[in-house]
Amino acid sequence: MLRGLKLYDCQYSGNCYKVRLLLHQLGRSFDRVEVDVKGGGTRTPAFLKLNPVGKVPLLDLGGGRRLSESNAILLYMAEGSPFLPTDSFERAKVYQWLFWEQYSHEPCIAVARHLMRVLGKTPSEEPRLAELWEKGRQALEVMQAHLASRAFLSGGRYSVADIALYAYTHVAHEGGFGLSAYPAIRAWLERVAQQPRHIPIDHVFR
Amino acid sequence: MLRGLKLYDCQYSGNCYKVRLLLHQLGRSFDRVEVDVKGGGTRTPAFLKLNPVGKVPLLDLGGGRRLSESNAILLYMAEGSPFLPTDSFERAKVYQWLFWEQYSHEPCIAVARHLMRVLGKTPSEEPRLAELWEKGRQALEVMQAHLASRAFLSGGRYSVADIALYAYTHVAHEGGFGLSAYPAIRAWLERVAQQPRHIPIDHVFR
Repeated sequence: MLRGLKLYDCQYSGNCYKVRLLLHQLGRSFDRVEVDVKGGGTRTPAFLKLNPVGKVPLLDLGGGRRLSESNAILLYMAEGSPFLPTDSFERAKVYQWLFWEQYSHEPCIAVARHLMRVLGKTPSEEPRLAELWEKGRQALEVMQAHLASRAFLSGGRYSVADIALYAYTHVAHEGGFGLSAYPAIRAWLERVAQQPRHIPIDHVFR
Repeated sequence: MLRGLKLYDCQYSGNCYKVRLLLHQLGRSFDRVEVDVKGGGTRTPAFLKLNPVGKVPLLDLGGGRRLSESNAILLYMAEGSPFLPTDSFERAKVYQWLFWEQYSHEPCIAVARHLMRVLGKTPSEEPRLAELWEKGRQALEVMQAHLASRAFLSGGRYSVADIALYAYTHVAHEGGFGLSAYPAIRAWLERVAQQPRHIPIDHVFR
């Protein structure tokens, strides 16, 4: 018998949205626990016992098995599905995009969005924003160049690499990034949003 | 016929060392191309054509296939070897540690080492160091707590998760981190260094 999945979640987090989107597209039901990240809900002793790193998303698989790091959850849950290539090199390219997302994309594009949208900072209040915009622009240029000749990031089809990069790219404007200079990214965002069983970041599960 | 592997490499880089260590432990021979990272060798038009992200390590597999992101290279090359668990959950935990390393460990511990060892900065010259030390300390505490009851990071045996975390942890002192408060980390570093075919970061391939 499959145990129920429980997702420790945060509605506005792009990292959490990745997991909700994949689980929904896989047709997997799950219980959601909304964690008040801004209010310190990931730093309580009870939560740190579940995830010593103190972050969401955290997926409880049952039987004491819990998994953190959004892109690790994507790889684990997508195993054997059409969302992870079977060809070993195309699969490795998915790995490459997932690590690139966490090292070179999320730390600028998601962090700028967090400062502006979640914490309500303006550029004059937050000098880090200028640096984040410059680094984020470099990341968007890498995506633009790659997607200029491809429909999806790896393997010629929609995969967890697209889910991972979509999560914060489609809300990049909330961090002050314009996408007008990146037509290939905008076309790709539309293709991702047209995938079967796509849900928006603010989709509320009932 | 297996094509020869070519590694675009940097001797002092922990991310590159991960790849050299795994390839050597797998018994795979490879050609090395030392790239002058400090001198801008990853930002030349010729290199950016090979890797648009402008970073080493970059592994050329032959036939126009190239892979970047150190931990993606580890996962790809370790497939089917004893360095990647076959159990799906233990394998997912390896993914988790690899993403954690790139998001929560490398950006503080490797960056502090880069500032001090490669660029020769002192704390008074580089105010970022204090923040990096605080974040790095948090990362080391996560490792200490995890390794206090385990010999290796995942699956009860040495894996690419250990290779990835060893790379910058064993030279953390070069970035100003002391490990005296972390006995479980020190014991684990010794276990990793005692693995068959271990090579140090400064091992020179002939």
